[in-house]
Amino acid sequence: MPQSETRLPARRADAERNRDKILAAARDAFADPEAEISMAEISRRAGVGMATLYRNFPGQQELLEALYSDEVDAVCDAAATLEAQTAGELLTAWLRRFFVFFNSKRHVGTELLRHSSDNASFLSENRDRVLAAAQPLLDAAQLSGEIRPDLTLVQLLDMVIAIATIHGDPSYVEPILRAALDGLRLRPERLLDERG
Amino acid sequence: MPQSETRLPARRADAERNRDKILAAARDAFADPEAEISMAEISRRAGVGMATLYRNFPGQQELLEALYSDEVDAVCDAAATLEAQTAGELLTAWLRRFFVFFNSKRHVGTELLRHSSDNASFLSENRDRVLAAAQPLLDAAQLSGEIRPDLTLVQLLDMVIAIATIHGDPSYVEPILRAALDGLRLRPERLLDERG
Repeated sequence: MPQSETRLPARRADAERNRDKILAAARDAFADPEAEISMAEISRRAGVGMATLYRNFPGQQELLEALYSDEVDAVCDAAATLEAQTAGELLTAWLRRFFVFFNSKRHVGTELLRHSSDNASFLSENRDRVLAAAQPLLDAAQLSGEIRPDLTLVQLLDMVIAIATIHGDPSYVEPILRAALDGLRLRPERLLDERG
Repeated sequence: MPQSETRLPARRADAERNRDKILAAARDAFADPEAEISMAEISRRAGVGMATLYRNFPGQQELLEALYSDEVDAVCDAAATLEAQTAGELLTAWLRRFFVFFNSKRHVGTELLRHSSDNASFLSENRDRVLAAAQPLLDAAQLSGEIRPDLTLVQLLDMVIAIATIHGDPSYVEPILRAALDGLRLRPERLLDERG
């Protein structure tokens, strides 16, 4: 965001840059299955001192929560910014975005659950934000008659999450996701029947 | 099977009945989330003495394997005996049967894995039997043009297994399964496009 940076006093811009660097480093660390996740490792990867790291995030829990919130922000934003030809295509595009989010946030979520027993409310608030952002997409897609009416958003997300947990590289899982998303489309049964 | 029983010597018929009673009791025990699974409990539920139980199954491992094999037999038999109007419907009917099997065998499979480290070959043999039984159904369904060609049988089973692991009662999971299976059907895209 170069525009806002030029308007910010230099020190605030530096602080924002540091926060972004730390979050990016933490994201990388979580994406690296070999990485030892610790504040020292994240400080090293971000290229910021421990004092700066702790000024931004008093502990690993706060860092994990910020990371998680950022990813939830992005998946919620996508519900407002993704573009598609039809309401049904918009919904499935967003479900694909949620699939990517779920795959990437899995480690963070698991770490979060391990590090604290009282962040259930944090997780459920984020879950509610995702549901609130996506519900209008499902409503519009079902109203348009493109998407089957017999599934709720929670059921759709559970389906996507279940597929995201299938072991295998993306080329193995992708056709499964494609088929399942295709199954959400309401079929013109009469056309099919006349054809058969 | 009254026919074969009348032909069997009475003692062999008794022995078969006992084996069946034990397996049925073990199946019930596994289906009961409250049940303590032990040889004593299975003997009690089956109404047979411990001596009879151990004559049939030297240990819990053998009992679990027999139980598991019986369920795999049933799911393989279904591939040959289920009836449907079309090759595609036959495949999805069998996938539904596999879904039920997977849900019911989960406990047995988990216990099996817990009780022995060297039954990997037992499990993989049973997996191979399921794949061999179902492959002709998928081949026919894909050949008929009803079912999308971009998924292998292993991918289909992984999809069904993923959905079977979604938490919720059957009325919650059923619409998800229905949508996903519906997504396997190859769509007459041209008809859809002309329509939209």
